[in-house]
Order: sequence, then structure tokens, then C-alpha cells
Amino acid sequence: MSSTTALRSLNINNINQHVVEAKYAVRGELAVRSEEYRAKLAKGDTSLPFDQVISANIGNPQQLDQKPITFFRQVLSLLEYPPLLEHEDVLLKQLGYKKDVVERARWLLKTVGSVGAYSASAGAPGIKESVAKFIERRDGFPAEPKDIYLSAGASSGVNTLLHIICASPNTGVLVPIPQYPLYTASLAVLNAKCVPYYLDESKGWGTDLEAIKGAYDKAIAEGIDVRSIVIINPGNPTGASLPAEDVKTIIDFAAEKKLVVMADEVYQTNVFKGKFHSFKGVLREMQKADPEKYKYVELASLHSISKGMVGECGHRGGYFELCGFDPEVEEQIYKFVSISLCAPVIGQCLVEMMVNPPKQGEPSYELYKQEYDGIFAGLQKRATALYEAFKEMEGVECDDPQGSMYLFPTIKLPQKAIEAAEKENRSPDEFYAFRLLDATGVCVVAGSGFGQKENTLHFRTTFLAPGTEWVGRITKFHNEFMKEFK
Amino acid sequence: MSSTTALRSLNINNINQHVVEAKYAVRGELAVRSEEYRAKLAKGDTSLPFDQVISANIGNPQQLDQKPITFFRQVLSLLEYPPLLEHEDVLLKQLGYKKDVVERARWLLKTVGSVGAYSASAGAPGIKESVAKFIERRDGFPAEPKDIYLSAGASSGVNTLLHIICASPNTGVLVPIPQYPLYTASLAVLNAKCVPYYLDESKGWGTDLEAIKGAYDKAIAEGIDVRSIVIINPGNPTGASLPAEDVKTIIDFAAEKKLVVMADEVYQTNVFKGKFHSFKGVLREMQKADPEKYKYVELASLHSISKGMVGECGHRGGYFELCGFDPEVEEQIYKFVSISLCAPVIGQCLVEMMVNPPKQGEPSYELYKQEYDGIFAGLQKRATALYEAFKEMEGVECDDPQGSMYLFPTIKLPQKAIEAAEKENRSPDEFYAFRLLDATGVCVVAGSGFGQKENTLHFRTTFLAPGTEWVGRITKFHNEFMKEFK
Repeated sequence: MSSTTALRSLNINNINQHVVEAKYAVRGELAVRSEEYRAKLAKGDTSLPFDQVISANIGNPQQLDQKPITFFRQVLSLLEYPPLLEHEDVLLKQLGYKKDVVERARWLLKTVGSVGAYSASAGAPGIKESVAKFIERRDGFPAEPKDIYLSAGASSGVNTLLHIICASPNTGVLVPIPQYPLYTASLAVLNAKCVPYYLDESKGWGTDLEAIKGAYDKAIAEGIDVRSIVIINPGNPTGASLPAEDVKTIIDFAAEKKLVVMADEVYQTNVFKGKFHSFKGVLREMQKADPEKYKYVELASLHSISKGMVGECGHRGGYFELCGFDPEVEEQIYKFVSISLCAPVIGQCLVEMMVNPPKQGEPSYELYKQEYDGIFAGLQKRATALYEAFKEMEGVECDDPQGSMYLFPTIKLPQKAIEAAEKENRSPDEFYAFRLLDATGVCVVAGSGFGQKENTLHFRTTFLAPGTEWVGRITKFHNEFMKEFK
Repeated sequence: MSSTTALRSLNINNINQHVVEAKYAVRGELAVRSEEYRAKLAKGDTSLPFDQVISANIGNPQQLDQKPITFFRQVLSLLEYPPLLEHEDVLLKQLGYKKDVVERARWLLKTVGSVGAYSASAGAPGIKESVAKFIERRDGFPAEPKDIYLSAGASSGVNTLLHIICASPNTGVLVPIPQYPLYTASLAVLNAKCVPYYLDESKGWGTDLEAIKGAYDKAIAEGIDVRSIVIINPGNPTGASLPAEDVKTIIDFAAEKKLVVMADEVYQTNVFKGKFHSFKGVLREMQKADPEKYKYVELASLHSISKGMVGECGHRGGYFELCGFDPEVEEQIYKFVSISLCAPVIGQCLVEMMVNPPKQGEPSYELYKQEYDGIFAGLQKRATALYEAFKEMEGVECDDPQGSMYLFPTIKLPQKAIEAAEKENRSPDEFYAFRLLDATGVCVVAGSGFGQKENTLHFRTTFLAPGTEWVGRITKFHNEFMKEFK
């Protein structure tokens, strides 16, 4: 503790200990060190063994080489400076804007007024209508604008939902392990119980009902009030994309145990293998087949503009849809979101365009399609290159890429490396990740940041960075590391 | 409670009761009803006794007639669609952009990369440097970028700080009454104690050291661990602008009792009377005079792009600066903000332009100055018109406008009105505000939404709505109301 502790109001021991306990490795010590390296390089420092930092620790596509989608950004430029609309001729003839860009901007401006004005607390009504229509098209079942809440990215939606669900230190939420640490961090801050259930690495990180049941029963036996189950589909950090059968199984379990299903579906378009099955769509099918049994299943499904081919993380946009919630509970959710006023309005407009992009036959469609497909193909190509590299590495095992933006290989490290890690007071996977960063400038996140089964080690890397040269850097480092600690 | 309660996981009685207890009148029942009226009018309904809803309940300038500042929005249009920068000639010669707009956009793009990428958790480093320079110019004392945290509006900054400060149900925070309900709502959600201190209406809603001491001593006697004092300067809802002497007195008290000073200074440019004195500037002066005594005073000062002549609420931008915090506590603040990733990057860019607007001699300066001064004069004019109207109304007393965006008149209602309110299970000021809305379409917030001394009644109205016709509507309503309940 600092020597000045007694002189201040706040110190590390008297502030909110639930915040102190929260862990968030994605932006933790490794990420901080990588930023220091980046700053050094920017200042012309040549003492490092690499000339570029590759931030493979975070799904931040536009920090790497992903270009924003032209249609989206042209519309946003008009929303930010509406007087441009008075120069339609210049826009169309000299600046390459299409007619549908201008029309969309006019419509959005009519809907939100000014992007500099607060919207209604749960989002601009016209945009919520667009989202509802998208969900209807996606699932083939009706959706209601009143059930849609626009949020500042999915993180903010998760924060809202957990604030409502977590009523006491005894509230439990089933969370997949490995998981995106937002869930464990938020539960720690809220002083509620994370009830971990392990995903099955041997089945491509799928959900395993027995594992979920086991975790649930154990928690109940310990007196925990388990109220909700989180599913990340497609998975983060695992990339796994769940078959419809798994989705059904989870809903069935949730119905039996009266659990709120929190479906984090932000990677719904990042699917390389199989098909995305939305929880909402599957739930409605089940309700059609057996209305009595599934009528009151509570589902919150989340989506975001940060991922997919949109990749607009910095704009902080997303939404969640509620199904089956008690109207009195919905009122409290509305009040809670109103305390932070509203989600960024430009982000709301991006949500609208994500769910309602140019359609075939419209002037911007060709370019949109080309950009969208190009991003998708680029991600798949880099994922495959990385996967092929991992396959060749000694002690590394990795599933073939299924989706999301990540690979999550297992690593088996020599005993000497494990001992060296212990000496530095680090877990072996953290030790490995720090060594990788120091040697190559490639920043990944150690598996312990997401949770992993005991005696297993992993790391998560995005496959967003351009080119494949950096993959070679990893291979070279890995070989040298294994040799050093043999 | 609903009849389906037993069938679901969540109901009003088992969700987080701290959320249920939180009150947020600014967007409460009155605001919801006003939105219903707005929707009715939009559908062509002619059954209402007014043809327009005036949202005087919330400081949302661009929802009413405030135009965004041209320089800001031109830059944002380029940040959203950087390929426009390849057409500099068209921008300058045909679209009215100036050279400094193009330069600023290029600089900001260099600083943030893409506005669609996550920035560092506490904000883009280059923007934090700009904020530090602004604070130096404003106060005449150094500021450090590392102490600046960019946030999604000031609300998000308050949320962060209270999350750190509130360690147990016994933590107390001194909050002025009347206050902006963000503070009481956040303390309720965090299950901490609001320690109210009354502002002195007889002295233009200034701070009263005796009132603060009294509230503090009473809380201490009750065993509350009082850790922080909130000051809103200029005041919300009161509009009061504190003299330097009051600021000093508060800092002195905070130093003596070891309280974190939370200075909400979002209205720092909305000052009609006197001068804005920043807590940071006054603190540094006091530290210069007596370094030992004030060395460890912990100050967090907040600012926002939502208010002032900027009025960009929908973009959700702001910052807070920390002084005197323990480095270990700052680390926890950094971790906490990193869980929600980063503030909207476009909002961060607006913060940069707010603190570093065009300077005299630069191409955009003239227009900027003209727009800025026009907004300021317009606010003052409407505030005065409203004030003059209130002066003429029976039973209404109101201080002359000092600053912020609000007037907060006292109303004395006839006994019959108080009884009629009781019958409707409403406080008399709420009853009055609902009647006003139903009769005129003007939505204000009842004083009880901010807190007020017992047996006093108030309402808060913004003076943002264009024209003065709506002021006449209020006068007419008031006269009829007083006649009805005489």
C-alpha cells in the first residue's frame, strides 16, 4: 500500500472491493505492455526485436486492416453534417454517393431529429422498428419494437441485464468456461455468483448438457439461487457455432429450471462452418410445438455493430431483445437504461443500417455486397492460415475455425517452462503470452483470462491482423520457446 | 404483481431491489406521458388541447432548436467518411468547408486511427493531451493526460466514480438538494447512502457551509462512512453559479474531513451572472498557498459535450480529471472503465473540438464565434423571457437566471390543489406538472424529482425551447389552475 494511504479518503483497501476483485484480462497487464511497446516504436525506438505491435488480443477489426463499409459511412457523414444534403448534385456526381445513401440519411434524420440530441431512453422508435423487422426476417416470427432496447454495444446490454438479475450475493448465473471475461467481471462487480459450466473442447467447444446440469446441481446444493444461463453463440473465445439441437437443449433446460436465457449472439454473421441458429427463432419453434411448456421462457438476445462484417466497435452500438419478461420487470429495465440517458445516436443509426443494409437492385448494393463478402473471405483466409500454422507447432492443438474472430488453441508446455512461470508468479499460459509479446510484438490473451479446465493451457488470438507474416513470427517464437525449455 | 409471476425466473419482488428503489424523474411518468402525446400528434390526432409537445423536462438542446456548431460537424463528417479528404477541392470550393476543418479531421484520424476502432480504455492519448492543455489554459496550472479519463457523457463518469467510492451500504456521499437525480439514482443502485445537504434558496441556491456541516455531522453520528461530496456548479436544477469563496470553503471542508470532491462542472460555459470558478483551479491556488494542508485533496472534476454551446447530448462524450488520487485506486478506475471497453470515439473527437475550438485568425473562427455567441444570447434571452413570465404569476417565485439550462421556480399552491393532489396519490408539484402537461403540452419536472425542503414546491423547466409562445401557454394555464383551486 502507498505511504500516503492515511492521508486520503480512498485507498486500495477501502474502495469497492467487488471492483478490486473483478478481472478483465483482455485489457489487462499484457495489453498495457503492448501499448507501451507501441508508443516506444512510434517514438522511433529501435531497441525492440520487432518493428510493429500486432494487437491480436482484442476483436478490434478497424484497428487492423478492416475497412468500414462504404454505404454505412457515407450515410453517417450526412447525418453528422446534414447541410451536405443541400448539395445532392455534388454528392452524386462528384463524390460517388448513391441515391440510396442520400435517401437513407434523410430517413434517419427524420427518425432521430439530430444525431446530437438524446433519443428516447431505449432508442429511437423508428430504429427499433427496423430492428424488429430484421428479427422477423431472420427468424420467421414476429418481433415487437417495444421489446428492443438499443444499447452502447452489447457490453452495455449485458451490464443492464445483470444489474436487474443480480439481487443478492446469492444470485447465481451460469457462465460458459472459457468465456468472454465481461461476464465474470460484471458478476464480480455486482457481487453475484458466477456458476461456471465447462464447454466440451473434445466436441469443438460445444455445450454439454451434462456439464450444465452438473454445474447447476452443484450450485443449488450450495444454496445458490441460480437464475440465468449465459450462452455465447458463436463462441468467444472458442469460435464454436452451436447446432440447433444444442440451442433446443439449453432452452429446454432453462424452461425446466426457470432460468433467464442470455444469448450473446454478437458473432451471428461470423460463421464459417454450419449455420447460425438464433435462440429467438428456436424458442419460437419450440413454443409453436408446445405452447404450454415454453410460454414463459425468458430470453434476452444481444447483438452488436462491433463484430460481424460491420466491425464498428468505436461507435458503441448494439441492441437486446426481450422475450417472455414480466412487464413489471421490463419497466425496471427501462428505468435503469434511462439513468444513463440513451445509447450513442450515431451508433443507433449504425444498428439500423446493419439490420437493414442495401438490398439487391438498390444503387449501393453491388459495392456493399463486394465489401461484405471481401471482409468475410479475408477473415476466413487468415483464420485458416493461422490454423494451418498452429497445426504444425509442437504441443499446440487447435480446432479448425468455425466462426467469431478467434482461435483458442491448447498449448502443452514443457515442465521447465511451467517452473519458470512459477518463479515469475505467473500462470504458465500468461508466461508464454508475455514471452510471445516480448519476442514478437504479437499480443494475445492467455487462456486463464477466459477460464479453462484445470491442467489445460490455451491462448486466444484474433485472426484480424492483415497478412500472414505475423503468423510466421509466432511459429518462430514458439519453436525457440520449446527449444529453450525442453 | 402479475398473475404469471410464479411461472418466470424474474418478477418485481425478486429482481435487484436497489434498482427498483432508484428514482429517475427526469425520464419518469411525466416524460413517458409527454412522449405518448407526441406520438398522438404525429399521427394527426386533434383531440388534444395543444398541437405541439414542448420537452422542457430535459436539457436536450438539439431536440429543440439549437443548431450544432458547423466546424464540429464538418470535421465529424470527414471522420465518418475519410475518402472525402481525397476531394479537398470539392470540399473547399463547393461545400463550404474551410482549410482548418480538413486539417483537424486529418489530425484526429491520425490520432484515433478509425472512429470505428476501439480506443484505449480511458480514451485516445492524443485527445487526452488536448484536454490537458485546455485545463492548463483555463486554470493556469499544469494538467496531465494520464489523469484524464474520456467517458460516454458525464453520467458515465459519475457512474465510474461512484462504483469505486461506494464500498458498502454504509458508504455515504454528500449530495446537494435539489440535485440532478443521477446522483441519488446511482447511489440507490449501488446500495450506498445519499447524505443530502440543502442548498440555500434565499441566497440564490448557493452552498451553505453550515448546512453541509450539519448534514455531515448527522451522518457521522448515525455511523455513516461519509467519503465524498458532490457539487454541481453551475447548478442543476438551480442554475446557481458558485463564487470562488464558496468553492474554497467546500475544498477546505473536504480537506479537513478527507472527502473526495466530485465537481460536476458540465455547465461551466452556461454562466450568465458572475464567472465560472473551476474546482481544479481553486484547489491549485490553495495548494500553492498551503501545500501541506491541501496536498492530498482528492478531486474528480467532470465535463461533457452535452451542455454548453456544444449541446451534443446524442454523441455521448465527456471526461473527468482526477487530482490527488492514490495510484492504486487509479489503477482500479482504469480497470473498471476497461470493462466497458471505451467511450464512443466520435464523442471523444467532439470532446477534443470542444476543448480546442477554432482560434482567432483561423478560417473557421468567425463562423464558430458567431454561432457560439448566438446560442449563448438565445439561451439568455429565453431564460429572461421565462423569468419575466414567472415574476408575473401568482404564487410563483423565481431567482433571476444565473446559468445552466434551467429555471427552478418555487410555487405556492392553494390548499384545494394540495387536497386534489392527495386524492390522486401524487405530490402537489407532480399534480401541478401533470395538469400543465395535459393542458399545454409543456413537459417540466416536478421539484420532488430533484428533492426540495419539506413544505416547499418547485418545478424545473429548461429554457431551450424556441420562441416564447409556449411561455404564454404556461401563464394561461397557471392562471386557470389557480382560479380552479382557489
